[in-house]
Amino acid sequence: MSGKFIVIEGLEGAGKSSVIEVVRNFIQALGQTCVCTREPGGTPMAEAIRECVKGDWQETVAEETELMLMYAARRQLLVNVIHPAMSKGEWVLGDRHDMSSLAYQGGGRQIPEDKLMALRTLCLQGFEPDLTLYLDVDPEEGLKRARGRGELDRIERSGMDFFQRTRDKYLQLAQASSTTVTINAMQPMAKVHEDVVAALKARLA
Amino acid sequence: MSGKFIVIEGLEGAGKSSVIEVVRNFIQALGQTCVCTREPGGTPMAEAIRECVKGDWQETVAEETELMLMYAARRQLLVNVIHPAMSKGEWVLGDRHDMSSLAYQGGGRQIPEDKLMALRTLCLQGFEPDLTLYLDVDPEEGLKRARGRGELDRIERSGMDFFQRTRDKYLQLAQASSTTVTINAMQPMAKVHEDVVAALKARLA
Repeated sequence: MSGKFIVIEGLEGAGKSSVIEVVRNFIQALGQTCVCTREPGGTPMAEAIRECVKGDWQETVAEETELMLMYAARRQLLVNVIHPAMSKGEWVLGDRHDMSSLAYQGGGRQIPEDKLMALRTLCLQGFEPDLTLYLDVDPEEGLKRARGRGELDRIERSGMDFFQRTRDKYLQLAQASSTTVTINAMQPMAKVHEDVVAALKARLA
Repeated sequence: MSGKFIVIEGLEGAGKSSVIEVVRNFIQALGQTCVCTREPGGTPMAEAIRECVKGDWQETVAEETELMLMYAARRQLLVNVIHPAMSKGEWVLGDRHDMSSLAYQGGGRQIPEDKLMALRTLCLQGFEPDLTLYLDVDPEEGLKRARGRGELDRIERSGMDFFQRTRDKYLQLAQASSTTVTINAMQPMAKVHEDVVAALKARLA
């Protein structure tokens, strides 16, 4: 594969959408085709699975169910979008990828690592992003911003402890990954975007 | 748990629906409450997952995706229906359960056993039916009957080789399981029902 896979990660309200625009512009300025994806979702079937995950069900949603649906959607996206695009030399820009599952389900929901690893192996089969930008934000601040945008979904309505654990896991994963750059997303937006461009130049140019 | 979990398994056109009626009547004649389920499905969320699995998608459906969706739906059913009913002492009658995944995905699609086992562990956590009735039918005959009922879905349109491998795996699993009875479903319906009742009496009375 000659294309690259760049992923934007972070809590609700971290500013992923505006950073995605910055990264897309950067990639296009390099003369590369940029395929934008989101997770869970990104193919018709994966979007239907997203609806299942995000739905406001009047029944217990087992943690294993949530996890299997996330990885089912990810597999569809990999097979139908990410792999084909990269093999044509296109760049793929992902709004979330596997680090979200590790942070939200592993950190937030405290699902044991062995359960996650079984699904990761089945789904990813060794595949990894070339670069991940983790936008770090305090959960209180992030959720305040997200609330301003409208109603929160089922996952977003989890308690503050859940988001604190999710952020802690994000920070820990970012630290341990040589292909991840942590961006302080609590800075003014212009400074966040400046840091993003600096990271892209350092890692991709 | 004091209730029992009885599962009816078999290829399309094996006659599961009419056997389910026979088993339900048998359970009710014992004075037991009978909760009927189907897989994939059986809860609102699991039925939505079923729609994803059965959908006629204009994209490759990765075998890992299909598998993860099947087990995601099964987990919902276990947590929200089967476990709660059994813990109240009710009997649960399942139209398909885990043996279907082993036969269709493991046998039919030839997905390696280690992939299946990882998901089984995550989903079932050791849970097993008290009794499985496997209705054995030649795929040619079964699909002829199923076609007579209307259009076949995505999985049902797989080739005849697929169904031969699925049946072979069913027979092998039934042979290896001490809680499974194989019923010859190519006999006249009255004789099939007689064999079903005989199996229920022998195993449950």
